[in-house]
Amino acid sequence: MNKNLDVCLTPALIPLYNVEDYIIVVIDIFRATSSICYGIENGAEAIIPVSEIEECAAYREKGFDHLLAAERNGEVVAGFDFGNSPFSYTKEKVSSKTVVLTTTNGTHALHLSRKAKKIVIGSFLNLTSLCNWLKTQNESILLVCAGWKNNFNLEDTLFAGAVVEQLKEHGYTLDDPAIAANDLFQIGKNDISQYLSKTSHGERLKKLGIEKDIAFCLQIDITTAIPILDGEKLIKLV
Amino acid sequence: MNKNLDVCLTPALIPLYNVEDYIIVVIDIFRATSSICYGIENGAEAIIPVSEIEECAAYREKGFDHLLAAERNGEVVAGFDFGNSPFSYTKEKVSSKTVVLTTTNGTHALHLSRKAKKIVIGSFLNLTSLCNWLKTQNESILLVCAGWKNNFNLEDTLFAGAVVEQLKEHGYTLDDPAIAANDLFQIGKNDISQYLSKTSHGERLKKLGIEKDIAFCLQIDITTAIPILDGEKLIKLV
Repeated sequence: MNKNLDVCLTPALIPLYNVEDYIIVVIDIFRATSSICYGIENGAEAIIPVSEIEECAAYREKGFDHLLAAERNGEVVAGFDFGNSPFSYTKEKVSSKTVVLTTTNGTHALHLSRKAKKIVIGSFLNLTSLCNWLKTQNESILLVCAGWKNNFNLEDTLFAGAVVEQLKEHGYTLDDPAIAANDLFQIGKNDISQYLSKTSHGERLKKLGIEKDIAFCLQIDITTAIPILDGEKLIKLV
Repeated sequence: MNKNLDVCLTPALIPLYNVEDYIIVVIDIFRATSSICYGIENGAEAIIPVSEIEECAAYREKGFDHLLAAERNGEVVAGFDFGNSPFSYTKEKVSSKTVVLTTTNGTHALHLSRKAKKIVIGSFLNLTSLCNWLKTQNESILLVCAGWKNNFNLEDTLFAGAVVEQLKEHGYTLDDPAIAANDLFQIGKNDISQYLSKTSHGERLKKLGIEKDIAFCLQIDITTAIPILDGEKLIKLV
């Protein structure tokens, strides 16, 4: 069977793919999918990604005992439990809890991917665990970069290139974006943080005072859990 | 004045940019913009890009004495003068003529860019001449890759990276796609042909028997003319 390993560089390009032919990996390195991986690793029962703060708040109004995560411009929104920093997703805070996470780019990517065979969540935190699982699936894989406001960003693409690096010798046909992502990973892999520091997005994130979050999100293989979409919830793949 | 040097990786992403803020360079290396640069260099009075073979044929029906270029699957369509090979755009064939060129990806990119301050055509053939002119303009620049079926391709992105290479020390702010394109160019620049041979698109073009066209389109600085859009026609910038 011919298996493809394709990279969708932004959610705006998802309509170009037959998503039902793929296992999809959603990637939003700064910071949604990193926080999701860390939270699921730390025993969160489920993480529900939503686009809007109002949707997030609605879970409380419905009487659910969920943790609500929402931030704007790097600040936790008043009335919410915490923001999108991975440091909010520690064992102490999220174990056995369901978290509703507000994330624009990531939710958009998930929504457009929902007809895929399976949807899992990737970040540098669970890189090798994710790749080892993908190798066992014998399916075509589409790596979907959440990007920035529907456009290309380097951090998500670099991570896609890291996945390609681990899978490319396993019989997949790569599309041009996958080749490019992998080549960019070759350039950046020895010091990903340094490589990304030259991007405009890196500058923007620095101004938000979240350098610690960035450093955290670039740690490789500190978790093994693979979050998988089950209905509207992300749960731990078992 | 802050000038941006941005790269739009596929026509599908053009709506993310305020095209009216930019001088736009349209890039479709295999083979539309290479053939256009060569044809304008060789004295074509104008080149009119259209999307559909029917539109192309309509120029003859209207009684115009234009050369009509149309091909499908690498073959000249019956009743047309020639196809999209740059070898059809020699002085002998196009001097003082107007050519109507059928090109799906390139025309799509041009159409979506039409509100830009100026629209010019780039290819490896006129690379340095184009960059030297861009430097004199003191405007933000958007390099629009025509791509392949609305998705990213390596050859157009690599060329965008070559333009970034010549402009990046001239006071522009680069977006993430521009940084990525330039990094890919660093990887491929010593042997662009070899670098592109690993792409699926390269394979596809080889099967069409147009290896000679590909080699031709990767020649750097063999022309100096810059095609610019004037209404619906591409003419020589003077």
